[in-house]
Amino acid sequence: MNVERSTDGPTRIGLKSVSPGRAKVPQSKSHPNPQARGEALETVFEVRDRDGLARLGRITTPHGEVETPALLPVINPNQVVLSATEMRAKFGAQIVITNAYILHRTMRDRALAEGVHGVLGFDGAVMTDSGAFQQHVYGGVEVSNEEIVSFQRDIRADIGTSLDRFSEPEHGPDQARADVEETLARTRRAAELKGDMLLAGAVQGALDPDLRRQCAKELSTIDVAVHAIGGVVPLMESYRFRDLVRVIIASRQGLRPDRPVHLFGAGHPMIFALAALLGCDLFDSASYHKYARAGRMMFPDGTRHIEELSYVPCECPACVGKTPDALRRDERALAEHNLYVSFGEVARVRQAIHAGDLWELAERRCRAHPALLDALKELRRHSEWLERFEPVSRHGALFYTGAETIHRPLLARYRQRLVERYSPPRRRALVMFPEGAKPYGAHYGDAIRKVEAVCNAHFLVKSAFGPVPIELDGMYPIAQSLVPEELDLEVVEASEVFARQFIAGAGYEFGILWDGEATLRDLDAWREPPVPIDWNLARVRAVADMQFGRGAADALLAGRVDIIRSRRTGRIRNVRVDGRHILSMRAHDGLFTLRAEGAKVLHRAFPKPALRVVVVTETAEFNREGRNVFAKFVVKTDPNLRPGDEVLVVDQDDRLVAVGQAFLNPEEMIAFQRGVAVHVREGLPA
Amino acid sequence: MNVERSTDGPTRIGLKSVSPGRAKVPQSKSHPNPQARGEALETVFEVRDRDGLARLGRITTPHGEVETPALLPVINPNQVVLSATEMRAKFGAQIVITNAYILHRTMRDRALAEGVHGVLGFDGAVMTDSGAFQQHVYGGVEVSNEEIVSFQRDIRADIGTSLDRFSEPEHGPDQARADVEETLARTRRAAELKGDMLLAGAVQGALDPDLRRQCAKELSTIDVAVHAIGGVVPLMESYRFRDLVRVIIASRQGLRPDRPVHLFGAGHPMIFALAALLGCDLFDSASYHKYARAGRMMFPDGTRHIEELSYVPCECPACVGKTPDALRRDERALAEHNLYVSFGEVARVRQAIHAGDLWELAERRCRAHPALLDALKELRRHSEWLERFEPVSRHGALFYTGAETIHRPLLARYRQRLVERYSPPRRRALVMFPEGAKPYGAHYGDAIRKVEAVCNAHFLVKSAFGPVPIELDGMYPIAQSLVPEELDLEVVEASEVFARQFIAGAGYEFGILWDGEATLRDLDAWREPPVPIDWNLARVRAVADMQFGRGAADALLAGRVDIIRSRRTGRIRNVRVDGRHILSMRAHDGLFTLRAEGAKVLHRAFPKPALRVVVVTETAEFNREGRNVFAKFVVKTDPNLRPGDEVLVVDQDDRLVAVGQAFLNPEEMIAFQRGVAVHVREGLPA
Repeated sequence: MNVERSTDGPTRIGLKSVSPGRAKVPQSKSHPNPQARGEALETVFEVRDRDGLARLGRITTPHGEVETPALLPVINPNQVVLSATEMRAKFGAQIVITNAYILHRTMRDRALAEGVHGVLGFDGAVMTDSGAFQQHVYGGVEVSNEEIVSFQRDIRADIGTSLDRFSEPEHGPDQARADVEETLARTRRAAELKGDMLLAGAVQGALDPDLRRQCAKELSTIDVAVHAIGGVVPLMESYRFRDLVRVIIASRQGLRPDRPVHLFGAGHPMIFALAALLGCDLFDSASYHKYARAGRMMFPDGTRHIEELSYVPCECPACVGKTPDALRRDERALAEHNLYVSFGEVARVRQAIHAGDLWELAERRCRAHPALLDALKELRRHSEWLERFEPVSRHGALFYTGAETIHRPLLARYRQRLVERYSPPRRRALVMFPEGAKPYGAHYGDAIRKVEAVCNAHFLVKSAFGPVPIELDGMYPIAQSLVPEELDLEVVEASEVFARQFIAGAGYEFGILWDGEATLRDLDAWREPPVPIDWNLARVRAVADMQFGRGAADALLAGRVDIIRSRRTGRIRNVRVDGRHILSMRAHDGLFTLRAEGAKVLHRAFPKPALRVVVVTETAEFNREGRNVFAKFVVKTDPNLRPGDEVLVVDQDDRLVAVGQAFLNPEEMIAFQRGVAVHVREGLPA
Repeated sequence: MNVERSTDGPTRIGLKSVSPGRAKVPQSKSHPNPQARGEALETVFEVRDRDGLARLGRITTPHGEVETPALLPVINPNQVVLSATEMRAKFGAQIVITNAYILHRTMRDRALAEGVHGVLGFDGAVMTDSGAFQQHVYGGVEVSNEEIVSFQRDIRADIGTSLDRFSEPEHGPDQARADVEETLARTRRAAELKGDMLLAGAVQGALDPDLRRQCAKELSTIDVAVHAIGGVVPLMESYRFRDLVRVIIASRQGLRPDRPVHLFGAGHPMIFALAALLGCDLFDSASYHKYARAGRMMFPDGTRHIEELSYVPCECPACVGKTPDALRRDERALAEHNLYVSFGEVARVRQAIHAGDLWELAERRCRAHPALLDALKELRRHSEWLERFEPVSRHGALFYTGAETIHRPLLARYRQRLVERYSPPRRRALVMFPEGAKPYGAHYGDAIRKVEAVCNAHFLVKSAFGPVPIELDGMYPIAQSLVPEELDLEVVEASEVFARQFIAGAGYEFGILWDGEATLRDLDAWREPPVPIDWNLARVRAVADMQFGRGAADALLAGRVDIIRSRRTGRIRNVRVDGRHILSMRAHDGLFTLRAEGAKVLHRAFPKPALRVVVVTETAEFNREGRNVFAKFVVKTDPNLRPGDEVLVVDQDDRLVAVGQAFLNPEEMIAFQRGVAVHVREGLPA
């Protein structure tokens, strides 16, 4: 095991992502573990489920809880198309947003007297915006940061916004830096003035990723409840989605992961899936009304003008049964359509996070416009960072949607772990099969038997996702994936490159592509006495190393190994060593569940911090009793853990107290103050 | 002009597609022009708009008109979830389908007494099925073809179905041939028995394309009103969409194009766009109910089981405001959801046909499942045939959705015409620009001026769609397309191959890829006295040849040429030769509208049948007055015409009587008995 940690005390994972298997953990000075350092920046955000950076969360506000991802419809108090109450009744909106700057300018006294909830006639959560966007539109506003923050506090907004400096995409380095400095100063001042109000503080910095990241890091040290990404409306308006992706990623890299992220002004359902995939939790939209006024209908695959339509291509309640003519004359129906579709898309995004297939949804959505395709292609450049947040498996199958799919962080991880963690059995020859029907091994079972009668070979499938040694053909995501029969050229070429890289490192004397009887004739020259391999044992070894790190199999399997298989399917179910149950293989993803006895072995074999989540010693007793590990008690972790990984829960003296499954990744475990970090499966009584 | 026709009399375009520019027209014996031969097989189908093989049509039935594409919900009279009347009220269904075999078995006397409309309590159109599908499910039915056809006639079905032999995908050649022979015999018998009922006759033939095509051809000679494609449910159930595409295409190739095509048992919205793109007009579905009973929700991007859902990812009236728990207990709501979404998808398909962007919709839909992606990739193998139906332009932009896009028939046509029709101006050097922002020429204007100061070069953009000589950069679909900045590897490689093929044939002395100042230095060795080109004239020449055929420009521009350009945009608007207005360039697609004076020139220059639509001489007077050409009066045509082409309308003595725009392609013009073949723009008084 080659994970090393050179540090004591609370460890922070820096922004620069660390390759698993050879981690050097950079130290970051910003936002240290508040628990360990005694700084309590209270968060109001709790994460209940996740898919990569996307999360199903809950924000607690004085006016109720808000489920995320959430869309905040904009209510203009001077021009109400649909009231906040209607927004809740029709679309299930738990929160709305209104512009404090407009309230301040047009009905200051009334707002102060009735509060923003009184003005809107709404008892749900209300966020207010500050006029920063009006700066962008009109070049300036007649209110100061202090005034507008105090005003928001005084009208009792649940979430208020500081008057950040809108950093236009075309701002050069100096101006962008000035935007950031001014924004940060104003946010700090706002944090002093906010009272009990939850504050949203925006990341600015134009298109400069370093500046965005730096602004976000600084913002993470200020007492704000919601992070916003600002200055992005011009990018969305001009379909500069690749720039949008870069800005979101850079911002998100600098932000504390325990706060919700609001993508300011994002109101088109076309980008919800992509933005959520990159960790945006909140969207707001005046577009539903602006578009309706212009006769434009929003759809998850783009915008259509009502004048273009001969048919109404929609089944939402505002559209059903209506002709294009009827809709043309009905601005309210168009606004409702835009809201139905937008809230529908939020539900689709939420369901995709729950199901773990948000990548598929985002990939499909990005086919709606070539500029979105460019944005999708940008993601592979950030794969190393995105991979840190990607769960190790999910319940459903992975769908190939196009060449982009093979670059998903999950598949990049598979290929990297193959190089770093997997050790092939020692064989002279390697026989490679082309991508075939799944399960791979079963498909080639006959060929394997024939080759083994001739020589001692190892077997590998050249899959779309990378080379698959047959011992790994039941493991997520290899077996649990659907791929077209006819692969894209880019995928065929990449698959070839991946296979060559793998073979180059593996040291076979002889490699051959399976071509039926011809291959058997070629192999005949190599005829040798059979040295049988126990493929079931090889499978246990390979999966254990891939999952826990190189050397895990040697440690876990030192002794008399019993592999218990399903009578019906023949699949591996349990592994016992010297009579102790150390591993169970899950049917749905072909990965191991680590049992307490197995955890003890790995704990002895692997030096800290490998596979560990270190909890405050005083709280470890609870975990020994089988209770979950809460994030606020996590002191440090193995930097290579990923959501869904099997982990060893240890106290500050490295005593093993429980075994469980990580819900958060290392940086999240350290940052979060609320919610579960590790689902404990078995506690180990002292 | 190298189009030749060796034949007199009514010409049929055979199934084997003919390359434009070097057509040899095969003669086909089957379904000759009924008008010319005096056989009147009445059709009840009229096409109002089209996008390739897909069409917005109308079927006239005794119980009203049915707009197509249409979904026919199945009503099981013994188990009504939603009545036919509800189907119309809620989803706008103009036609439903019910099973005559079930009526015959369970309520024969009542059905005979009340008629099928009485049993269903419905006064709209009703189609009945015959029990052929029950043969597939149960292995046989206890009714004869004669019995069930007579029964359908006697219960006054608007459209009835013969009891065809369900040809299972796994049927080998002999069995499939027997299926076809039996099906044809039964359909002929049914045609004798049908009375006034409209008859649907199915194409069978398992997976054998030749057999399918042959069955379809034979069926086209029988007096049926609706063609059906049968035996496909097992393909859809097992996601064999590539086989489904092959079966549809082979069937459609043999069928008369003037009859609506019903894809039997197609009820999942996931495939409507693809099936419509291949010329299917009718779908029927019992799936909405079968799926609902099993807790399954249909979406255009697949199926989801209600048990998987934590959120309801839908905004249809049946779903809005409901929790997954509530839906789980509500089979009727699930059935309604399935219908809302299916009818919504039909509306989206209709709108896409109207807008001319059905390819985009189908390409996007095919990202929902890898098996659909395989089906999409299959299309390029049929590009030559599909191209014959593809309109020459449309109003909206063409969107790139992925590598598949470059293989669209429209783009294959562009590349083919470039080779066959385009003549580059004679220059020694060729400078190639990489794909860039559009419009191409304008983007590279500065570079072009610099090169022209040094040597006499021609210019070409290596676009994703193929090489674009700069004179063609304003023409559909080159300028009117949206392509990502970052191209797929397959597209980059294809673009390179296309460019090489083009250059190989063009005979430049020197070709160079534009690389800024370095290129100018390289070109300096070639410095030569400038021989200026009139690029506007070159543009007129190039577009005219691409549009009308090689030699068109020479003929049209023989004389004093005045090119009138827009003062505002500088774009070409009109072309006069010796004072006569011969061409107008359309702003939306950069193609020419042919004026009467231009038509006269082309009529003189190009021997028949080039560019011609020949009408019955007796009817030509109407066209001289500016009236449209109806398909039933078309005697023959240039086999290379495409929908949207500018055409010369001539009488049987080749006298030019009008100029207009083709709505149908050659085989359609000959087959159709109803509707417009050519929209006449200018008639030429005798």
